[in-house]
Amino acid sequence: MKMSLDKLYEVIDKKKDEFVTRLSRAVSIPSVSADVTLRPKVVEMADFVVSEFTKLGAKMEKRDIGYHQMDGQDVPLPPIVLGQYGNDPSKKTVLIYNHFDVQPASLEDGWSTDPFTLTVDNKGRMFGRGATDDKGPLIGWISAIEAHKELGIDFPVNLLMCFEGMEEYGSEGLEDLIRAEAEKYFAKADCVCISDTYWLGTKKPVLTYGLRGVCYFNITVEGPSADLHSGVFGGTVHEPMTDLVAIMSTLVKPNGEILIPGIMDQVAELTPTEDSIYDGIDYTMEDLKEAVGADISIYPDPKRTLQHRWRYPTLSLHGIEGAFSGSGAKTVIPAKVIGKFSIRTVPNMESETVERLVKEHVTKVFNSLNSKNKLAFNNMHSGSWWISSPDHWHYDVGKKATERVYGITPDFVREGGSIPVTVTFEQSLKKNVLLLPMGRGDDGAHSINEKLDLDNFLKGIKLFCTYVHELASVSP
Amino acid sequence: MKMSLDKLYEVIDKKKDEFVTRLSRAVSIPSVSADVTLRPKVVEMADFVVSEFTKLGAKMEKRDIGYHQMDGQDVPLPPIVLGQYGNDPSKKTVLIYNHFDVQPASLEDGWSTDPFTLTVDNKGRMFGRGATDDKGPLIGWISAIEAHKELGIDFPVNLLMCFEGMEEYGSEGLEDLIRAEAEKYFAKADCVCISDTYWLGTKKPVLTYGLRGVCYFNITVEGPSADLHSGVFGGTVHEPMTDLVAIMSTLVKPNGEILIPGIMDQVAELTPTEDSIYDGIDYTMEDLKEAVGADISIYPDPKRTLQHRWRYPTLSLHGIEGAFSGSGAKTVIPAKVIGKFSIRTVPNMESETVERLVKEHVTKVFNSLNSKNKLAFNNMHSGSWWISSPDHWHYDVGKKATERVYGITPDFVREGGSIPVTVTFEQSLKKNVLLLPMGRGDDGAHSINEKLDLDNFLKGIKLFCTYVHELASVSP
Ligand SMILES: [Zn+2]
Ligand SMILES: [Zn+2]
Ligand SMILES: [Zn+2]
Ligand SMILES: [Zn+2]
Repeated sequence: MKMSLDKLYEVIDKKKDEFVTRLSRAVSIPSVSADVTLRPKVVEMADFVVSEFTKLGAKMEKRDIGYHQMDGQDVPLPPIVLGQYGNDPSKKTVLIYNHFDVQPASLEDGWSTDPFTLTVDNKGRMFGRGATDDKGPLIGWISAIEAHKELGIDFPVNLLMCFEGMEEYGSEGLEDLIRAEAEKYFAKADCVCISDTYWLGTKKPVLTYGLRGVCYFNITVEGPSADLHSGVFGGTVHEPMTDLVAIMSTLVKPNGEILIPGIMDQVAELTPTEDSIYDGIDYTMEDLKEAVGADISIYPDPKRTLQHRWRYPTLSLHGIEGAFSGSGAKTVIPAKVIGKFSIRTVPNMESETVERLVKEHVTKVFNSLNSKNKLAFNNMHSGSWWISSPDHWHYDVGKKATERVYGITPDFVREGGSIPVTVTFEQSLKKNVLLLPMGRGDDGAHSINEKLDLDNFLKGIKLFCTYVHELASVSP
Repeated sequence: MKMSLDKLYEVIDKKKDEFVTRLSRAVSIPSVSADVTLRPKVVEMADFVVSEFTKLGAKMEKRDIGYHQMDGQDVPLPPIVLGQYGNDPSKKTVLIYNHFDVQPASLEDGWSTDPFTLTVDNKGRMFGRGATDDKGPLIGWISAIEAHKELGIDFPVNLLMCFEGMEEYGSEGLEDLIRAEAEKYFAKADCVCISDTYWLGTKKPVLTYGLRGVCYFNITVEGPSADLHSGVFGGTVHEPMTDLVAIMSTLVKPNGEILIPGIMDQVAELTPTEDSIYDGIDYTMEDLKEAVGADISIYPDPKRTLQHRWRYPTLSLHGIEGAFSGSGAKTVIPAKVIGKFSIRTVPNMESETVERLVKEHVTKVFNSLNSKNKLAFNNMHSGSWWISSPDHWHYDVGKKATERVYGITPDFVREGGSIPVTVTFEQSLKKNVLLLPMGRGDDGAHSINEKLDLDNFLKGIKLFCTYVHELASVSP
């Protein structure tokens, strides 16, 4: 194995420009799932993925998953791309998942370069929307197969593929498809590998074994039948914004403490063993400061900071729909305002319990206001937390592969965000899921100037190659 | 006087269609001052006004008042139109003010008809943006002059005119011009008449003798250098939205009570005499319910409702700039959020004191949060409250004119909103200002489906004619 890996590494370095060009073609397709006018580009991106894999000999298919409602119209969902590369019963089979849609991006948001033109700077940073989330890893898999073909080395495992185009807009239709295909298309999968997370920092690779869940809520307060002039009606009617702000101020304290009764009672206790895991992780307060661009940490030490990022719940107020949000000074009493907030959940919180507790609290607070406005409470979506065991053989494969490529043992980390598909795969296929990141912690997945370092891209391709070879050598 | 007034009324009824056509031409020019792309239309509207008055023999001029900053570019301000009709030293001189710009409007906002096509329904309601605010009254003055010319009746007073095209966007440049021309162009004015307010209800005419002022504030809370993902950073950093909502929740109670210490101490006490004025005003709780489209009144009776609309301050939360305001469920920690709110002021509140008290309170609350985010406090603009005396001879003129046209004594009312130009005229010219409305309380000045009733339009023209004749007959 050692020799063929070295050859693979060599050919990957040699084909660097070709691989970057392929990524740059992918980035040039603005497959923004949240923008209904760009939906055809998401479909174009699906076709690009199908075409690239097909050229290398994979059997690809596009699954039509129907329509959904968006901005009041019926919009066709982009297809989910399924694929199979190799079908040798003597080999292990790994199911890989990536998404080919991206977050919105425009120069006006403050990008330094055109977000849909991959731009490499003199530090080898490749800027572009989707570079790291999640086109880089997806192109990485294509490139890993190509490297094998180039050298005539047999691909050591069978690949099953599941690529979606709606990840950044709620993964509509994906869960149904996975559940339907669990014992059909995906039946032979021995394990699942997802490359859609990031290193914790910028220097040390990681394997991700846990994710927080999320429960996203909105609260609607509705009063007058249309927006009112505050000069004319201010002081005489109950204003929805006043009620909403009063409610929102009772959810979380500025120090992050969740104020909704009962929420914290569901959190698994921190055992001394678990607590000690955090001691070894390569993370400093300087890393946090750099990542957020300001000295605004709640906790003074890395340990508590990481615990509150990974294993404690948090509540964020995202914004208010329907209130005045422009610049300038509009003297409006908004008629209907919708406050948005979400709770990141952790073991052993149950989404249903969280929803019930939040609803009870919000209703109670609103009733105490004695307002004549109307309240509506809505759980927009929920996704469960997920936690795997770093002791599983699959994680050992990931660890060995990372050590081989980077020469260092990766940190085992969790993430504060949610990837609901992880839970879906694990529950439906009943196989282990490994989150194997390609990019760094400062890649800015959903921000302006998203990037992927060329070094991470190439080492990431090497990592995928090494991972499949390590996987092949595990005794069944 | 009686005979010539009757003849004027007759000719106004006769020329009804011509007058409506003129209004409809004015409405067809989308002179939206807040929309930079429509700025040429505001200038076109200025030209239209100049042309119509010039045809009738008035001397008109356009005053260039330079540029202002809008959406990051230097945009030329529309001219202020000054005019003079008659210059007979033996006559009284009245300065009239109107504005020829309008609020934004589009079918998508929910208009039933094209907002820039004056559409008359079978109840005689003329729908169109600016119909009542403030093109109807402006066309009313042109029509009043025309009626006199048609009959060969001498116009009984000299008119000075000041018409602006930036009223709906902060009246930029107007105050400076008024102060500069107070003892020049406007020197001969004996009084000022502004028709830019409305009846309280839909049946009884009013004269407006008081306005609330306004102090508009924003609070900026800034944390990270860019928006963050709530999954990744939630729970580890101080979130600007949490801080801002905490501050905003301490400003006003859901029952309208202002919570900022010291604000209420400045409010003039309600004397029994003043209190009794409110007993006679034609206003019911049903009027309020109809106007706001919901049963959300804070007070159960018309008296306290009107007092809180006119003679008590109020604080409204308008919205938040920089937070997530779209539909959908974005899991963002906004990096910088700007809360907007304003206080309507009344005698004897001073804008400077209000600003100081608000700033002290906001700063104190923010400090108590122990947040590491940064706070900035800003007074975006202030305009003073204004109050005149219903006992002034000018109000008596307005009262007699209204009685002559409508056959009923008008209610003397105040308004909850602000018209800063009123204070500017009064302070600069040191002359009495009369607010003489044309439209009804349900005209929907800044809403969708703005309208002016044909009956109010025609009676308004008659009112202007009668007003100038009554004015001429007042002994100096
Ligand atoms: Zn992703
Ligand atoms: Zn993403
Ligand atoms: Zn107006
Ligand atoms: Zn207006």
